[in-house]
Amino acid sequence: MEGAAQTASGIVTAAVLVIGDEILSGRTKDKNIGYIAEYLTGIGIDLKEVRIVPDEEPEIIAAVNALRARYTYLFTTGGIGPTHDDITADCVAKAFGVPLEHHPRAVEIMRERVAATGGVMNEARMRMTRVPKGGELVLNKISAAPGFRIGNVIVMAGIPSVMQAMLDYVTPQLKTGTPMLSETIRADCREGDIGTELGEIAKLYSDVVIGSYPFHDENNVANTNVVMRSRDPARLALVKAAVAAMLARVKAELGPQKI
Amino acid sequence: MEGAAQTASGIVTAAVLVIGDEILSGRTKDKNIGYIAEYLTGIGIDLKEVRIVPDEEPEIIAAVNALRARYTYLFTTGGIGPTHDDITADCVAKAFGVPLEHHPRAVEIMRERVAATGGVMNEARMRMTRVPKGGELVLNKISAAPGFRIGNVIVMAGIPSVMQAMLDYVTPQLKTGTPMLSETIRADCREGDIGTELGEIAKLYSDVVIGSYPFHDENNVANTNVVMRSRDPARLALVKAAVAAMLARVKAELGPQKI
Repeated sequence: MEGAAQTASGIVTAAVLVIGDEILSGRTKDKNIGYIAEYLTGIGIDLKEVRIVPDEEPEIIAAVNALRARYTYLFTTGGIGPTHDDITADCVAKAFGVPLEHHPRAVEIMRERVAATGGVMNEARMRMTRVPKGGELVLNKISAAPGFRIGNVIVMAGIPSVMQAMLDYVTPQLKTGTPMLSETIRADCREGDIGTELGEIAKLYSDVVIGSYPFHDENNVANTNVVMRSRDPARLALVKAAVAAMLARVKAELGPQKI
Repeated sequence: MEGAAQTASGIVTAAVLVIGDEILSGRTKDKNIGYIAEYLTGIGIDLKEVRIVPDEEPEIIAAVNALRARYTYLFTTGGIGPTHDDITADCVAKAFGVPLEHHPRAVEIMRERVAATGGVMNEARMRMTRVPKGGELVLNKISAAPGFRIGNVIVMAGIPSVMQAMLDYVTPQLKTGTPMLSETIRADCREGDIGTELGEIAKLYSDVVIGSYPFHDENNVANTNVVMRSRDPARLALVKAAVAAMLARVKAELGPQKI
């Protein structure tokens, strides 16, 4: 365990891999990506990429290997249940080139839960206790069936409440970076009115990430949020002031306008 | 234009590439993936992969080239607005190795909209008329700013209402496959009770995709949906009967149980 250490560079990255035919068919709408994105941003981990792949072994193995090599952490969701279409543990074991073993503590936890709920400890439930050799359990109190962590890969359930419990469990073990700070200015004009000017500010302050997001406001008028992001509060304040000054200038030039 | 032709093999595949820092930071929750997934399934196109990447040129170019080479179609969302962080058109042009040009019809449409709304036709708005050489416009009545299609890549807006209008516009041009049919049986037992038996059926009928999805029912009891998918209605009916018979047998053996 690394504890909740901060890295020297201050930058910790992550990818999310969502595993499941049901998401790609549209039958189930993913609720995990947005949750994990916001959660990681909050603890100073930069989510850099997300992939959704079907329940197919070669696809899962290729994605696990591509993403774990590239980012500090890879979080997976889905495919760790008791049925034949739950092949995430098998694929992660193959990606790491290690065998899959029944984890003694996972077996114990499953036996306790099964006894408490009057079920039978069968082959399907034993399937949920399999962890790639060298992996550590990622516990959750909701379903009892654990996820696991091996190397920089954290394997979680697809059910949102269970996934969220697993994320809470594993977070104290993760390196976290300097959190990205963010400021939003509501422009009260259209994106097309400020595009060029905003681009000039973005060039001047290339260390600050500036995003522009159109929306319809409470009067159903086309409006824009300008979002600035940086790890350095002083730079962020500087850019915020520059954007505010630009907006005042552009709006004075435009005068009142139809939308 | 290919018209709404069906392919000989009956299988048409697609990937979705979501472009945007705001999705990865969690600030904006994606609403397009689930919509496109369901839409494509409905017209017989198999969505096989989704990626979300940041507003970074090398990432976008690499993803466009990886995905367009692998699937019948690639649909992108996001990054086609008037600001400096909208770099999708630039990246798609680079991925195809062609220049980016102001499309005459796009310029005309933008001029009309700008005149009608009392805005000014400035550099930022001209930015939205740029299309990689050889690309065709994907129109929409909501924002007026068009998306485009080049080769098998369809570039759409990130705003859901605009994206949906673009998807409707482009669909008649797409090859579509034999739609995947699907049947769902509510198991009225827990996933762990039927995992092994369901796996045996899946092995016997390997041409039918069988998925198992746990959920909590109206009595807050752990329950399971078994979803079967095939392009062949006869095979689907056969598997449905096999699953129904298995469920009846397993539940008779289990008897009433606590959850």
